[in-house]
Amino acid sequence: MDNVPFKGIIAYPVTPFDDNEVVDIPLFKKQVERLVAAGSHGIAPLGSTGVLPYLNDAEKEAIAEATMKQVSGRVPTLVGVSNLTTEKTIYHAQFSEKAGATAVMIIPMSYWKLTDDEIVRHYDAVASKISIPIMAYNNPATGGVDMSPTLLKRLLEIPNVTMIKESTGDIQRMHYLRKELGEEVAFFNGSNPLALAAFTAGAAGWCTAAPNLIPELNIALYEAIQVNNLEKARKLFYQQVDLLKFIVAKGLPRSIKAGLDILGIGGGGFKSPLGPLSDHDIATLETILASVKSEEYQYQ
Amino acid sequence: MDNVPFKGIIAYPVTPFDDNEVVDIPLFKKQVERLVAAGSHGIAPLGSTGVLPYLNDAEKEAIAEATMKQVSGRVPTLVGVSNLTTEKTIYHAQFSEKAGATAVMIIPMSYWKLTDDEIVRHYDAVASKISIPIMAYNNPATGGVDMSPTLLKRLLEIPNVTMIKESTGDIQRMHYLRKELGEEVAFFNGSNPLALAAFTAGAAGWCTAAPNLIPELNIALYEAIQVNNLEKARKLFYQQVDLLKFIVAKGLPRSIKAGLDILGIGGGGFKSPLGPLSDHDIATLETILASVKSEEYQYQ
Amino acid sequence: MDNVPFKGIIAYPVTPFDDNEVVDIPLFKKQVERLVAAGSHGIAPLGSTGVLPYLNDAEKEAIAEATMKQVSGRVPTLVGVSNLTTEKTIYHAQFSEKAGATAVMIIPMSYWKLTDDEIVRHYDAVASKISIPIMAYNNPATGGVDMSPTLLKRLLEIPNVTMIKESTGDIQRMHYLRKELGEEVAFFNGSNPLALAAFTAGAAGWCTAAPNLIPELNIALYEAIQVNNLEKARKLFYQQVDLLKFIVAKGLPRSIKAGLDILGIGGGGFKSPLGPLSDHDIATLETILASVKSEEYQYQ
Amino acid sequence: MDNVPFKGIIAYPVTPFDDNEVVDIPLFKKQVERLVAAGSHGIAPLGSTGVLPYLNDAEKEAIAEATMKQVSGRVPTLVGVSNLTTEKTIYHAQFSEKAGATAVMIIPMSYWKLTDDEIVRHYDAVASKISIPIMAYNNPATGGVDMSPTLLKRLLEIPNVTMIKESTGDIQRMHYLRKELGEEVAFFNGSNPLALAAFTAGAAGWCTAAPNLIPELNIALYEAIQVNNLEKARKLFYQQVDLLKFIVAKGLPRSIKAGLDILGIGGGGFKSPLGPLSDHDIATLETILASVKSEEYQYQ
Repeated sequence: MDNVPFKGIIAYPVTPFDDNEVVDIPLFKKQVERLVAAGSHGIAPLGSTGVLPYLNDAEKEAIAEATMKQVSGRVPTLVGVSNLTTEKTIYHAQFSEKAGATAVMIIPMSYWKLTDDEIVRHYDAVASKISIPIMAYNNPATGGVDMSPTLLKRLLEIPNVTMIKESTGDIQRMHYLRKELGEEVAFFNGSNPLALAAFTAGAAGWCTAAPNLIPELNIALYEAIQVNNLEKARKLFYQQVDLLKFIVAKGLPRSIKAGLDILGIGGGGFKSPLGPLSDHDIATLETILASVKSEEYQYQ
Repeated sequence: MDNVPFKGIIAYPVTPFDDNEVVDIPLFKKQVERLVAAGSHGIAPLGSTGVLPYLNDAEKEAIAEATMKQVSGRVPTLVGVSNLTTEKTIYHAQFSEKAGATAVMIIPMSYWKLTDDEIVRHYDAVASKISIPIMAYNNPATGGVDMSPTLLKRLLEIPNVTMIKESTGDIQRMHYLRKELGEEVAFFNGSNPLALAAFTAGAAGWCTAAPNLIPELNIALYEAIQVNNLEKARKLFYQQVDLLKFIVAKGLPRSIKAGLDILGIGGGGFKSPLGPLSDHDIATLETILASVKSEEYQYQ
Repeated sequence: MDNVPFKGIIAYPVTPFDDNEVVDIPLFKKQVERLVAAGSHGIAPLGSTGVLPYLNDAEKEAIAEATMKQVSGRVPTLVGVSNLTTEKTIYHAQFSEKAGATAVMIIPMSYWKLTDDEIVRHYDAVASKISIPIMAYNNPATGGVDMSPTLLKRLLEIPNVTMIKESTGDIQRMHYLRKELGEEVAFFNGSNPLALAAFTAGAAGWCTAAPNLIPELNIALYEAIQVNNLEKARKLFYQQVDLLKFIVAKGLPRSIKAGLDILGIGGGGFKSPLGPLSDHDIATLETILASVKSEEYQYQ
Repeated sequence: MDNVPFKGIIAYPVTPFDDNEVVDIPLFKKQVERLVAAGSHGIAPLGSTGVLPYLNDAEKEAIAEATMKQVSGRVPTLVGVSNLTTEKTIYHAQFSEKAGATAVMIIPMSYWKLTDDEIVRHYDAVASKISIPIMAYNNPATGGVDMSPTLLKRLLEIPNVTMIKESTGDIQRMHYLRKELGEEVAFFNGSNPLALAAFTAGAAGWCTAAPNLIPELNIALYEAIQVNNLEKARKLFYQQVDLLKFIVAKGLPRSIKAGLDILGIGGGGFKSPLGPLSDHDIATLETILASVKSEEYQYQ
């Protein structure tokens, strides 16, 4: 697994806005600092959690630079640069490399369904313009394209496409990837409720927004797997699964920001039309968070 | 049906690019002129067919202005202004109104699934900033949101949301709309292969890219329905259905541009990562076009 | 269209049971008489509506014989003989022919998904043992198999397979059948809410349980299509669509029996585990039936 | 977990037929003997693998009795008794109890979709007539009903419904069951390609036809989980996953019988319309079987 700078828990920060829907950089840095301090193994700004597609160029660049400054080399960084057009994807990938990103993540966003050849040309065009590694991201639910294992194989032939993030939520897909692509290919799980099954299947890491709320539990799950302790991993997973399912069901930006408010850290505001969690859902989240933290099993 | 400036065949032009992926305005105007001259009842630039989400602000504005100039009031115009953020949707809606658009079309684009309240606020915010009517567009396949009839009812309470375009491709959905929203609400069909069934169900119009290739057949189908001649409508529909299915299956921008090339009008190029139809598909399209035009039934 | 003894409204009776879950033949005959007297163009016992798969051999035979006796040649009869095994399908097809059935209907029931070759052999084996025509029935929702147009083409090469009943509820499927199989093939619609669209698309008939409750409206819709009066057909369809949707949503045996009780004819009881409609749903059905019958538009 | 007589690998025999489509009892006994001798923890005749719905009463009874005679109390037996009607389900459940079955398995087979109340009454009626425990089986793909966790909770309130077999193939469903129903409820996995993920999630056993072909690998996987050795379990799983996927994709009766032929044991014939695997698929299965058995990792 050459040129794979990630493993373990890759934490996704949100993008907070102030009351005028302007990005709140000081709050963002505070949130990132907390993710690093908690022991996350990587930081991934401008993902779906960070509402990348809703941001303009200036906002994207401010978030990328703030991440580099705050992380300051303590852990590797993975910056989302996906865009509908190849031209803009290249633009943001080059900006990220210059800003100091360890790697970039690219999902083939699609309004009109792309052919396999178009997707390969897209990755190839971007890859040829940067020298840092690329994580190819498959998430039909948000990206609109479902990349087949055959297509992923073709992408992995591009020298700096070295990692795959799989978010279909289908564990059999991961089994298939592992069998088809071989043990040496690094694949990462992007489906929170699949965390246990994906590590069991051999995932190298877990791309997740959950560390904003329960970093210790996320990291403990990974560590139990590392020491081959399935029973402990299972207990840790069942301790956190209700929260993982809630944040996915309600939308990551909404639920993570509400959770950060509950925890006293501050989640920040939204960019319209996205808005906050309903009062009813906030109350449910409070109950789940309290329950997760009070369960008898201790992860230390 | 107050404030409903459309009926019949609403034609969607493509957005042609030159070899440097720059919008080709002269070719665009030529294509629009042909749609008007053929008898289309309305012109709708910057739709899905016009690859709206792939264009930057300057490109969108150039296309909107070129449309107004070329159509020059001969038929009403419907300009697509959808955007992920409310702020940009308002910006483009206001620009279109100033440029002379008859109405704007808005689909609630969604990367993160919006709640019904968020969608209503989105339309309400845009509607309050313009005075021309709005067509609310439902297309889960491209927009990622499926607006329920209940939600559409709420949208129709906003004074200048006066039209609905439905593209789920489910005819039973149109029956439901008609029963729930009442006969007085104008709904438009956006699913090409559903053209006959939708007119049968009472659709006021058909939003379609097909007039770029077979305007006479599209218009003749509408006219047969208008004179209550089902048998003629059925024959006309079966004459064109293979083409309608082909352009949907292969993607409208790709297949319409290829068809315009075949017809000698010129379709123009693409913006990456979108590319042209494969040679094999072009050959199939040639066969279908030749067959459509040679069938014995004459639509005059 | 040789050897096609059906057109128009083919009415499906229920199978009523007494309190001991024994088939109530006198009530069944009364229900059949009413369907014939109301002007149905054909009678189809032992369909899904008649809970065929829940009956034992003696019950099936009693229902088939009672139908022949009551109909007495006034209209053609279409008897359901589908069974998981080829052996039993042949048995019931031969019994029906001897009892005087005009034709038999066969859906390739499937617990284990059958290959195309297995389905062709199944129809071929049955067809070779009887001399009356066969209607091949496609309904993935109840049968578990979705027969492709290619497969249907193969089935139509068997001499006495002469009719197709299509119940996928997808109007585009009917368009495809018509285009692929040619105008001379008789296809019948088995999806109630698709009645208008299917006749518009050229269906020869409508296989439906609705005549148990609203025979005049069903027949009037067919007649409006026959005289090429789309406007009248549309009005008649919207008058009955709520009822058509209700009976499908709640299950045909349950809702038709409840409707027959409301109309004072008597629907009869059920065979466990199937049971009656809930009180709440019965109240809804009463409201719909009253509304259907009171609407201003008169179908005479 | 009271009254739960199963754990580990519950092996499903096929039902072999001779050339006249008559059940081949001697071959069946030989196949069962092999499953017991190989170390299976339970034997489950008359499942989907055993083509239960295609058998008549006499065939079902012969298979049940032959199983009891051959197994002779060495391991517990689980007999499938599902039927569309409650009356016949009771009949077969009572027969199985008298024949000596340890427990019965019941899926709520459904042609017409059953309500939750109807399903509860169905299980309740059967449970009240027997004294051995019942495994409730959820498999929407073959049974046509998807029982919600809420419904499963209601079923578990019936005293002798003590086990759940889940075959939706969705690992998140198992997480939900475990969280909602509590650790004390015994749930069994019925989806072969989910074997590793289901054991990881805490499944008590694996209901599978695979031991007909690779019993040592199936048992070794279970044992690795028992000793908390995730790494070993993962290796064993990846060694067998291609076979597990193949037998599911091609249909269990077809592929298991072909595999038994390849292994020299003899799979027996089929009941029409079901037929054998194609020559091409048989060749693929030979390759997969050879590869599974030759892989370097040894499971002893």
